Amino acid sequence: MSNQLLDRVVAEIADEMAQRADRGAVASYIPELARVDPRRFGLVVIDAAGHVAAAGDADVPFSIQSISKVFTLTLALGKAGDRLWRRVGREPSGSAFNSIVQLEHERGIPRNPFINAGAIAVTDLILSGHQPREALGEILRFLQFLAGDSSIVIDDAVAKSEQRTGFRNAALANYMKSFGVLDNPVEYTLGVYFHHCAIAMSCRQLAMAGRFLAHNGQNPSTGHNVVSSERARRINALMLTCGHYDGSGEFAYRVGLPGKSGVGGGVLAVAPGNASIAVWAPGLDAAGNSHLGRVALEALTKRMGWSIFGV
Amino acid sequence: MSNQLLDRVVAEIADEMAQRADRGAVASYIPELARVDPRRFGLVVIDAAGHVAAAGDADVPFSIQSISKVFTLTLALGKAGDRLWRRVGREPSGSAFNSIVQLEHERGIPRNPFINAGAIAVTDLILSGHQPREALGEILRFLQFLAGDSSIVIDDAVAKSEQRTGFRNAALANYMKSFGVLDNPVEYTLGVYFHHCAIAMSCRQLAMAGRFLAHNGQNPSTGHNVVSSERARRINALMLTCGHYDGSGEFAYRVGLPGKSGVGGGVLAVAPGNASIAVWAPGLDAAGNSHLGRVALEALTKRMGWSIFGV
Amino acid sequence: MSNQLLDRVVAEIADEMAQRADRGAVASYIPELARVDPRRFGLVVIDAAGHVAAAGDADVPFSIQSISKVFTLTLALGKAGDRLWRRVGREPSGSAFNSIVQLEHERGIPRNPFINAGAIAVTDLILSGHQPREALGEILRFLQFLAGDSSIVIDDAVAKSEQRTGFRNAALANYMKSFGVLDNPVEYTLGVYFHHCAIAMSCRQLAMAGRFLAHNGQNPSTGHNVVSSERARRINALMLTCGHYDGSGEFAYRVGLPGKSGVGGGVLAVAPGNASIAVWAPGLDAAGNSHLGRVALEALTKRMGWSIFGV
Amino acid sequence: MSNQLLDRVVAEIADEMAQRADRGAVASYIPELARVDPRRFGLVVIDAAGHVAAAGDADVPFSIQSISKVFTLTLALGKAGDRLWRRVGREPSGSAFNSIVQLEHERGIPRNPFINAGAIAVTDLILSGHQPREALGEILRFLQFLAGDSSIVIDDAVAKSEQRTGFRNAALANYMKSFGVLDNPVEYTLGVYFHHCAIAMSCRQLAMAGRFLAHNGQNPSTGHNVVSSERARRINALMLTCGHYDGSGEFAYRVGLPGKSGVGGGVLAVAPGNASIAVWAPGLDAAGNSHLGRVALEALTKRMGWSIFGV
Repeated sequence: MSNQLLDRVVAEIADEMAQRADRGAVASYIPELARVDPRRFGLVVIDAAGHVAAAGDADVPFSIQSISKVFTLTLALGKAGDRLWRRVGREPSGSAFNSIVQLEHERGIPRNPFINAGAIAVTDLILSGHQPREALGEILRFLQFLAGDSSIVIDDAVAKSEQRTGFRNAALANYMKSFGVLDNPVEYTLGVYFHHCAIAMSCRQLAMAGRFLAHNGQNPSTGHNVVSSERARRINALMLTCGHYDGSGEFAYRVGLPGKSGVGGGVLAVAPGNASIAVWAPGLDAAGNSHLGRVALEALTKRMGWSIFGV
Repeated sequence: MSNQLLDRVVAEIADEMAQRADRGAVASYIPELARVDPRRFGLVVIDAAGHVAAAGDADVPFSIQSISKVFTLTLALGKAGDRLWRRVGREPSGSAFNSIVQLEHERGIPRNPFINAGAIAVTDLILSGHQPREALGEILRFLQFLAGDSSIVIDDAVAKSEQRTGFRNAALANYMKSFGVLDNPVEYTLGVYFHHCAIAMSCRQLAMAGRFLAHNGQNPSTGHNVVSSERARRINALMLTCGHYDGSGEFAYRVGLPGKSGVGGGVLAVAPGNASIAVWAPGLDAAGNSHLGRVALEALTKRMGWSIFGV
Repeated sequence: MSNQLLDRVVAEIADEMAQRADRGAVASYIPELARVDPRRFGLVVIDAAGHVAAAGDADVPFSIQSISKVFTLTLALGKAGDRLWRRVGREPSGSAFNSIVQLEHERGIPRNPFINAGAIAVTDLILSGHQPREALGEILRFLQFLAGDSSIVIDDAVAKSEQRTGFRNAALANYMKSFGVLDNPVEYTLGVYFHHCAIAMSCRQLAMAGRFLAHNGQNPSTGHNVVSSERARRINALMLTCGHYDGSGEFAYRVGLPGKSGVGGGVLAVAPGNASIAVWAPGLDAAGNSHLGRVALEALTKRMGWSIFGV
Repeated sequence: MSNQLLDRVVAEIADEMAQRADRGAVASYIPELARVDPRRFGLVVIDAAGHVAAAGDADVPFSIQSISKVFTLTLALGKAGDRLWRRVGREPSGSAFNSIVQLEHERGIPRNPFINAGAIAVTDLILSGHQPREALGEILRFLQFLAGDSSIVIDDAVAKSEQRTGFRNAALANYMKSFGVLDNPVEYTLGVYFHHCAIAMSCRQLAMAGRFLAHNGQNPSTGHNVVSSERARRINALMLTCGHYDGSGEFAYRVGLPGKSGVGGGVLAVAPGNASIAVWAPGLDAAGNSHLGRVALEALTKRMGWSIFGV
């Protein structure tokens, strides 16, 4: 019966979104993202029992971009533990996602692991002691494992394109390097970073990969313990306060769930105890987050009563 | 039985805190706050059934300072609704609580209602159309009503002292006024602001006053509907992302509850569906939040399983 | 003969300026300045021998505004000597004239005495130990003495109007006060500041008052020693690097003389060894400096070979 | 006789400097600069008649570092004329020489050609249409021509060392590139930049090379016209307002001459109409300028009456 409610709500929301004219603008800084059809929409919700409610383009792979930062953070915490926090903070940034001003004021330490600078620092930590190819393999295998799907790949054209035009990220990386925050050669770290941002996944794969965050660190279907329950809560807290760049407060205010967005238009959201959710709508708002993604999630949490801030 | 667990946990935490040597430093910018004994500690938790678990200095009034901003925001939203958001944002500030830099970059619009500038703008909205004395009376009566206790008063010596030395807040107010963000004479708005920050309450009164936020806008004992359930959720979201100045990310990461701190050493925290919590420990950390208050709340949510980010 | 050259150049420039269509926009933040006719133009040059070349509205008084800061600096250095530099810096600001950001970064110490914050700090120093009325009288008498003209007065309507709307300056003053940079009550210091900015002078009076800066600290006609030659050089250096807000580099590049502008459209410029110059054209450029004032001075230095950077 | 005065003053100053204990700290960020003996001191003054007054280590080559920016600016203006100002401003920076904050606020346009970012943008312009090796050859030949000395070379060890550790400059360059301010591949532009900063010259060579700036664009001995008199004045104006990083105001205030410093401890100063001056003292002050270099120049201008701000 609950399955029926969830299935109906997901279908309704997909219908409503299909009729919206306000879609935001597709990211245009690289041709691979600019070419995506703005009418795409996918929504997948997987509840605690493993029931999958899917609608729209649920199985079309898209570029997960910054959503990958949730998984690289998880991986890096597994390797380095709290040592990681020596080089990255845990506070919202209060400015645009690629701001370099904050780095100057705080001597090269990025505010949190979800802004670009912070994610580059996290990537550098995963890379340490490995070749770029190995580090990238490890990240990709981790996502395949979490999603239970070995078909997930990196979109090489996207990675190459970002590498060619990623001067802002190169500036951030060189700047941190000048303060000694990165251990590896800048071009290695950036190479791994650009490639893990270029991983392509469908909503179904993404929602599957996020299940451990909704269930105290454990995938309830496989029983795999990915992280401790404390670490899962803490990653969720970081997603809530920092997961939507300078629109994080707005997402918390309207949706009320931990979530992480990417400029490809995807959002991974977590309803603790209830569900793992992935939505994809390529048009972005002014803060660089999926516009209809946020609208759909706001409708979903309201109708399912899933907000973490009250029933 | 649940009562017994809660009573025991609260008592244990109070005992543990009494033995801690790390207490932070009491706020020193006005004599009235500097004189407070740093060994004070109070903790009150009121659960959904109305059971009150109290420990330590639970009935000693202290200066609630910025915690008052939760209540003035609630009041102002009641008066102005979403019009309020034309003059205040909803994003974490990413900088110190009294920063004026952000105001310059964003043309006089404060980032959120819980930094000083934002709270001054909210106060200005409550004041509009009234005399300062009337506005202040309204705020005080609202808190007496919420706490069910008409003995709550303003500590006039604290208010006067803050007014005499509050040049930073006067700078913020004049700066916003230069952008047309304030409607009333600067000295009127500041007068009301300094006085509502000087309200004195005990942990018991404060926890009582915060119950509507834990229970979808309604006090479950009296049945009073204070705000809609949506508004309660949204105020909680703002407390989570912005309630601890530039330590908000840290509080979310460690405690995992919406909360609002004041430089008097108090914290109001909300465990949605479970409890309203007030803690008081006057020593502050580097970000200006109660040090042992945060430690106590971290222990409480862990032992009670109340984090909003997972069980 | 040199007189003839100077007279001819001054007359030519006034003619050329009368035909320019590009006049900039008159300052509009207070009605008294907004009402000034943008076609006004005055130019007075007084050479070392005391010869006065005048053209246009040479005897029409205008609001000298920030030009007064040159004279209050001179007065304050006379009183406090190098102690003054404990509360004001000597570096160009690199940002808008009323920026408060710099004050936050540098803990309340303004970058130089010619931005608003710096001039307020200088005024505070003149005020110390006096009543506002006395301090203002001293400033006014100093200008009357320098100009040799006791008819110079303060335009009270301008002063009152600025005081009523000067929230940005009130913010700067309160902000410095919060760092302990000001000694006197904020409203006293601001009162004196707004009034000395409201002094009205003609180009003739202004050029006369500036002669000591062109001639090593001495008025060559009266023989009055106003400051030492070293101090005159240093005030000129400050005018060169900081005298035109965030257009100081541009003024040095194009005109090549120490100069100080005011939002009333006046500019005082100094050709060391050669002349004291005052120009008035009310229309301002984007940086808040007189547009035609700068154009006229560029023509004048070029034709007379007076640039300090080469013949 | 004038020669005698100049020779005596130069000798006296060298003697006085040799006895000073306050020498500042030698730049330490690369081993090649850190190894330089802090007791080195050289001073060369060449007057309008071509008389050379020299003292101390006048013929010891040192790394001219940022002083090269005066010559690359001259060269780039010759190639691009006022088009250059589309990508570089003309205002003092008001912040540290390697600040990236300003670039964010002003969308990738550096404030002036003498801060690192601005000099990199100027280098990029010289490079356009050439191979790095050709561009570098052109810069070196220009300096050899100006100094009349074909023995001037680049110190390759210094260039390599800077390239290896120049992450801050790489950040600046990538950041400008992200705004489209640079035309060439970042590594090419940086390569040329690091190499021209590594040119080694003695005070004698440097003073010789700067003569055109002191004499309206012309070398009075050879009669070579390097630039127009207007351009010479304008370069001098830029040196005055921007030539000493965030110590430019201080240099103008104390010395009163256009000048450009380098972290190698050299300063080129220009007394228009009177002399070209080069001084070398490796110890730096807090702003990164030669400490004794400034002290020596202050003594020189005072004793020779060469300040541009009065006799």
